Amino acid sequence: MKLYVTDLSPNSRRVLAVMHQLGLAGETEVQKFNLVEGQHRSEDFREINPNMKVPVLVDGDFKLWEANPIMIYMSDRQGAEEFCPSDSATRIEILRWISWEVQHFNRAIGDITWETVAKQFFNMGEPDAEKIKAGQENFRRFAAVLEEHLADRDFILGDKPTVADFAVGSHSALALYPQSQVPLLEFPKVLAWFQRLETLPAWAKTAPQAPAEAAE
Amino acid sequence: MKLYVTDLSPNSRRVLAVMHQLGLAGETEVQKFNLVEGQHRSEDFREINPNMKVPVLVDGDFKLWEANPIMIYMSDRQGAEEFCPSDSATRIEILRWISWEVQHFNRAIGDITWETVAKQFFNMGEPDAEKIKAGQENFRRFAAVLEEHLADRDFILGDKPTVADFAVGSHSALALYPQSQVPLLEFPKVLAWFQRLETLPAWAKTAPQAPAEAAE
Ligand SMILES: N[C@@H](CCC(=O)N[C@@H](CS)C(=O)NCC(=O)O)C(=O)O
Ligand SMILES: N[C@@H](CCC(=O)N[C@@H](CS)C(=O)NCC(=O)O)C(=O)O
Repeated sequence: MKLYVTDLSPNSRRVLAVMHQLGLAGETEVQKFNLVEGQHRSEDFREINPNMKVPVLVDGDFKLWEANPIMIYMSDRQGAEEFCPSDSATRIEILRWISWEVQHFNRAIGDITWETVAKQFFNMGEPDAEKIKAGQENFRRFAAVLEEHLADRDFILGDKPTVADFAVGSHSALALYPQSQVPLLEFPKVLAWFQRLETLPAWAKTAPQAPAEAAE
Repeated sequence: MKLYVTDLSPNSRRVLAVMHQLGLAGETEVQKFNLVEGQHRSEDFREINPNMKVPVLVDGDFKLWEANPIMIYMSDRQGAEEFCPSDSATRIEILRWISWEVQHFNRAIGDITWETVAKQFFNMGEPDAEKIKAGQENFRRFAAVLEEHLADRDFILGDKPTVADFAVGSHSALALYPQSQVPLLEFPKVLAWFQRLETLPAWAKTAPQAPAEAAE
């Protein structure tokens, strides 16, 4: 298999973390694109993903774009019943959280940290205080839902990490950066869960490096 | 079963259309909230969906929020193998398109038509020309992918409509409004596919009414 990814991207991190979690690193070639240099804007890559985005998984003739489906595909391929249960009731729970994180929870974290973290890393100008505030309001609304859900669980589906945590938690590093301005201290269960994820070996192996470190 | 929905919402329309498509209208109570009046902001509804959003499906004790998982749940409950195939390869295709539409294709349509349609319906001020333009650029980028995909297919998974069409096509009415400014004429296959969807009985039964008509 081959995975196309990029640095500092929660969408890439989540698929790489799943690759490690499932023990697939040995049989997966990882190709890293530098998006700032436009390495993904080639005609060859358009054949692989007409959206010209990463991550993409190539498995033989099969080309799959979109991070969350890639994670579920890899799990099914490995028959990873514990990490990604296949009974239809659990699948619906996974889909519920995945739908929610891309539209609400991680969109809010992304909106805030685009201003507070990404702009700084990529030298893209000053953070916009109004956008940070709007993102924080959204974050508070949706983090409250997760906070309540985690009141009596260590992980989203119960006592073990699953693909749902790897999706919903994909923005952990961005949220935990000291300069992020994501109001995590108001949500201690969410904060503890982010930290719990960071201690997983698959998570530790995919910790992002800031561009300055990466360049060394 | 009970479905909580609202008017003029593509997220509500898609679940109502699936309800009709699966022949579930007879056994489903539909509760319509007026969001402008804040009918969804009650403590009772918070018990049903802590996000305080519609749509929500209640099936006995089971409460499900998020439109796309609701559609898949209803399909599985009916054993609707043709509308929502359960083999894992097809499920991954469905997830690919659902992930893509919420993050890219329909987000672009939503961004444009928030300015050109919704603001007018809800009396929310003047459209922002810059936001329309940014939305149109995104729309063109992602519509091109669907245009190519539909070159040799009538529907997303082949020759029959499936849950993937009901998700990706959920914004058809917004896009087709004469004032929408969604550059559909540049994508004739996408336009024809939207029109093909509108002719389905389940789609026709859920055509939105503009607020003026709805108020009559
Ligand atoms: N919906 C996609 C999002 C992927 C995405 O937006 N990738 C970004 C990097 S995080 C990208 O490739 N951006 C480059 C571009 O859009 O030109 C997924 O879930 O994988
Ligand atoms: N991710 C949700 C989105 C639902 C949503 O945003 N619903 C809107 C109406 S289209 C809503 O309830 N808005 C009221 C609010 O957020 O206060 C889904 O897929 O169902």
